Amino acid sequence: MELVEEMLAGDVLSLARLITRVERDGADVPQIMKQVYPHLGKAHCIGITGPPGAGKSTVVDRLTAVLRQRGFTVGIIAADPTSPFTGGAVLGDRIRMQQHYLDEGVFIRSMATRGSHGGLPRTTGGVIKLMGAFGKDCILVETVGVGQTELDIMQNVDTVVVVLVPEAGDAIQTMKAGLFEIADIFAVNKADRPGADNLVAELRMMVHLRSEETWWQVPVVATEAINNVGIEELYGQIEKHRQALEETGRLSQRRQEQRRQEFLEIVERRVSEELLKLVERDEELGRHMAMVEAGEVDPYSAADEILRPRTLLASWSRQLAERRSSD
Amino acid sequence: MELVEEMLAGDVLSLARLITRVERDGADVPQIMKQVYPHLGKAHCIGITGPPGAGKSTVVDRLTAVLRQRGFTVGIIAADPTSPFTGGAVLGDRIRMQQHYLDEGVFIRSMATRGSHGGLPRTTGGVIKLMGAFGKDCILVETVGVGQTELDIMQNVDTVVVVLVPEAGDAIQTMKAGLFEIADIFAVNKADRPGADNLVAELRMMVHLRSEETWWQVPVVATEAINNVGIEELYGQIEKHRQALEETGRLSQRRQEQRRQEFLEIVERRVSEELLKLVERDEELGRHMAMVEAGEVDPYSAADEILRPRTLLASWSRQLAERRSSD
Repeated sequence: MELVEEMLAGDVLSLARLITRVERDGADVPQIMKQVYPHLGKAHCIGITGPPGAGKSTVVDRLTAVLRQRGFTVGIIAADPTSPFTGGAVLGDRIRMQQHYLDEGVFIRSMATRGSHGGLPRTTGGVIKLMGAFGKDCILVETVGVGQTELDIMQNVDTVVVVLVPEAGDAIQTMKAGLFEIADIFAVNKADRPGADNLVAELRMMVHLRSEETWWQVPVVATEAINNVGIEELYGQIEKHRQALEETGRLSQRRQEQRRQEFLEIVERRVSEELLKLVERDEELGRHMAMVEAGEVDPYSAADEILRPRTLLASWSRQLAERRSSD
Repeated sequence: MELVEEMLAGDVLSLARLITRVERDGADVPQIMKQVYPHLGKAHCIGITGPPGAGKSTVVDRLTAVLRQRGFTVGIIAADPTSPFTGGAVLGDRIRMQQHYLDEGVFIRSMATRGSHGGLPRTTGGVIKLMGAFGKDCILVETVGVGQTELDIMQNVDTVVVVLVPEAGDAIQTMKAGLFEIADIFAVNKADRPGADNLVAELRMMVHLRSEETWWQVPVVATEAINNVGIEELYGQIEKHRQALEETGRLSQRRQEQRRQEFLEIVERRVSEELLKLVERDEELGRHMAMVEAGEVDPYSAADEILRPRTLLASWSRQLAERRSSD
């Protein structure tokens, strides 16, 4: 595909267009990904997650400045509907962000977080790949860490930073929301507020109690992102985590596992798409659907009827024969 | 299944056991659902959602008291990891809840919200059905309304109450989180706090501007659940909504659509399970998987190879032949 070649050659507009296509999750995604795949694996992908109002976007903003100072190019993906990067900002935020919007070394993209039933982790993973293939050194992914969908997105990154604030509830609540399991680094933001020291101490104790692994001790960094306090230290920990991943061979393990999962998901989805198409064309389905809608038969029994192997096999044979004759 | 018969006869322990089975999403769920299906459709299912900290659990608690006063039996499903019903409570909450825990007319169940990749809306839908078949008059479903998974759960209910608080952010943020589209009723909780009047006014204006339908104007109710203020009015609106759904024929339409969606999902899942099993037994898959993991081939191309119709069809024929000979 020419568009992919242009993107790989460094054309930003082509990158933007490809991202839109991946977001739409259309029939051309496999072709795009096939071309993109050989160019992956170089970018360090950092997830920034946490409850609403923790200041994740400000952390992303300040971290971007630190990365740019060091000469790294940055891709930002905001899958958080309240992020200033996605437009959910007050005027002050927007003005701050503008420095990055005008910087050619930074590419910012917000994901449509609404209406993509179950597809957001997949499409976000695709956009991460595009930015990686484009050649970004670091990719920052901002999500609001509350639901399962949002946690799933974090499966696609190398290093997860969980941003918390004192008033957002205690460490126990963080554990319950599943954030504890996925954190590689904690940032206690708005660290000038009351309760911050307690939260830092509480998290450190919990990390200490729960950690079974010796290769990485989850650090807790106090930050005031809005005043640029603690951001250098946060960056230092992110860099350390990347090094630890590489030195212990865990980075390649992690990516191997990601590829495995992706493959299984693709097979599963393709198989189900193919067969749904096949079943939908079937007259029998219409009849069963009407009965299910009317409540005359339960959907499980109707599915049993439709999915009897013999019926499906016959239907598939016909389809195959049709394909052959049209070739 | 005897367990289902016992549950339908009113045995609470059987209900609890069936819920556990549905939550595990095992092979016996279709059989359970087939038996349960003829007994559905009587319960009024009410979803309570909103951002963390909005006081949803207290609203559920107080609403339960109102429903019990009127002689209705109540089922409570908490799919919110921070809900006191799921254990995420301070001591005071627990003591308050106890009145309901000891009430035989109330059945409380918390859902395991962690680790169920994509399955939570489905299993929650199943638990709603079990409680309905058991004979509960009202079923209250509490979720934290932030992610897609949590919004999907609300597809299973008849009436959606969105609980907001002044400090949780303005109405714009509510819209962005997708809560505006699903709300049948807004409750502005902690209405004694500053900003509450503004939020009520803002929501009313937005409802007015956006409403295209004449059959139901989304009401905005001010509540102080903790002080039992506004709960009777909230209940009144819920009751009105149920009546409006019934009178306009929308209740049966809504359930028809739910059955349709459920049927399609079941067919899709069954088809993909069947075929994954089939493909996994295949020697070819192992070979392709190894290449994908090593990064030698991209997962899309590997899927192409594995899913060539001819290969699959041959594999399926073999399986069918095996089944026949073993019958």
